[in-house]
Amino acid sequence: MPLQMNADELMDYLEEVFPQVKNDFAVDRLADMEVDMRLKVADRHLRPGGTVSGPSMFSLADCAVYAITLAMVGRKALAVTTNASIDFMRKPQAGVDLIARCRLLKLGRVLAVGEALLFSDGMDAPVARASLTYSIPPKG
Amino acid sequence: MPLQMNADELMDYLEEVFPQVKNDFAVDRLADMEVDMRLKVADRHLRPGGTVSGPSMFSLADCAVYAITLAMVGRKALAVTTNASIDFMRKPQAGVDLIARCRLLKLGRVLAVGEALLFSDGMDAPVARASLTYSIPPKG
Amino acid sequence: MPLQMNADELMDYLEEVFPQVKNDFAVDRLADMEVDMRLKVADRHLRPGGTVSGPSMFSLADCAVYAITLAMVGRKALAVTTNASIDFMRKPQAGVDLIARCRLLKLGRVLAVGEALLFSDGMDAPVARASLTYSIPPKG
Amino acid sequence: MPLQMNADELMDYLEEVFPQVKNDFAVDRLADMEVDMRLKVADRHLRPGGTVSGPSMFSLADCAVYAITLAMVGRKALAVTTNASIDFMRKPQAGVDLIARCRLLKLGRVLAVGEALLFSDGMDAPVARASLTYSIPPKG
Repeated sequence: MPLQMNADELMDYLEEVFPQVKNDFAVDRLADMEVDMRLKVADRHLRPGGTVSGPSMFSLADCAVYAITLAMVGRKALAVTTNASIDFMRKPQAGVDLIARCRLLKLGRVLAVGEALLFSDGMDAPVARASLTYSIPPKG
Repeated sequence: MPLQMNADELMDYLEEVFPQVKNDFAVDRLADMEVDMRLKVADRHLRPGGTVSGPSMFSLADCAVYAITLAMVGRKALAVTTNASIDFMRKPQAGVDLIARCRLLKLGRVLAVGEALLFSDGMDAPVARASLTYSIPPKG
Repeated sequence: MPLQMNADELMDYLEEVFPQVKNDFAVDRLADMEVDMRLKVADRHLRPGGTVSGPSMFSLADCAVYAITLAMVGRKALAVTTNASIDFMRKPQAGVDLIARCRLLKLGRVLAVGEALLFSDGMDAPVARASLTYSIPPKG
Repeated sequence: MPLQMNADELMDYLEEVFPQVKNDFAVDRLADMEVDMRLKVADRHLRPGGTVSGPSMFSLADCAVYAITLAMVGRKALAVTTNASIDFMRKPQAGVDLIARCRLLKLGRVLAVGEALLFSDGMDAPVARASLTYSIPPKG
């Protein structure tokens, strides 16, 4: 199954279903079963000390895997996160964006499973890894 | 080991280390190894349709287990989340607060492990469950 | 929905679908949405030093949540584990059985979610916690 | 930090600390922060229908990430699994070995975090993904 949307269509759709997040995220790269999603880090994402907060990292991973699922199955806004597991491994660097490199590992009829590695922009060592499952509603 | 803080001292400390969240959370109940934490749901926590977003639920669970860890070990602001696993099971009810009923299962020298069930205020069926691990820095 | 099987019927069914495990497990208690499952610890479950191995603990948690799911939905041998998250918190005591105290948190049309605390028989502090998700096949 | 053992030394060490598993696993490839580990599938690993059981998949992922951790830090038999998260995505193929392609994402002073993708030998689509955390005991 090929991609059902390009990056612009995907961002338009995310903004439609998640209006609160439209200023937070950008699609850096979109490919078959893969996406690189950027968190445009602003003050509201930070902990004291200037590092990105855990919930902001969760939010990026969730948005990225959700986005690539949508991009593959087409417009199904009701897909819902059913499980997330995340390991926080290093402190994100202050003052730089966070990038999620994400791929879908399974795109089934009922469930989609994806994983993401999160990096401070420009760094080699991941700050977190996450895996997420989405329940895909039946058609029609 | 008894509680090292009461609910007021705990909230003061959370506000000190996480100033952004001071309007979001309240301690409903604090006991040995247990806390009930309330997310005072506002527009910024919602998805279209009025239900609480996944990142907001993650944030509540993380804050709750972090808080009871702090309440037990005393002021160690540098304790960091190392792992979180969360199952989203039901859609939160629109227009009501979210409550995390949380307990510490292990409070070790190096790691603390806790779990939380999240409920829409007044409802019996949990909307989510979460388990979280924190790394506790060495003394001194 | 009431229990669809009693403890004897449940064990008979587990032995039918998982013949390898029939000597490993026993149902200590079965109730609405809850089960206590015992791992009858033998040499094959042990690590050097005499403690129960991680895979044996995983196996107990998986079997327990699977069993209560079956007991609630009736004979659906094709229910499959889709996700498991487990925290190993303490070393199990040598020479005693392991008990999983387990409850279903959600029993949906498509997914069941349960959690288990594992204890060395007679001890108060849990050795592990686990949460598991099962995909329930459609009827017919 | 380079590898502290080669594949033969690693298998010798695993056999020493986990004598029960010596017939189950083989190291297919060992590199800096990476290992491919093979489960030599036998009847005791199977479910009715001939597919590898969940606990056997867990066991392979756990052994693989444990092995690469040991290979990097040297002989520290007391490293213990503290957390595991696993997604079961496809039914393993009957009658073939299972391969875990595993890499360490973090090797800290206190915690190591790794991930593994599990494949039926010769197949492209992963049957499971797992992430595991190990607590590394202090030196001396």
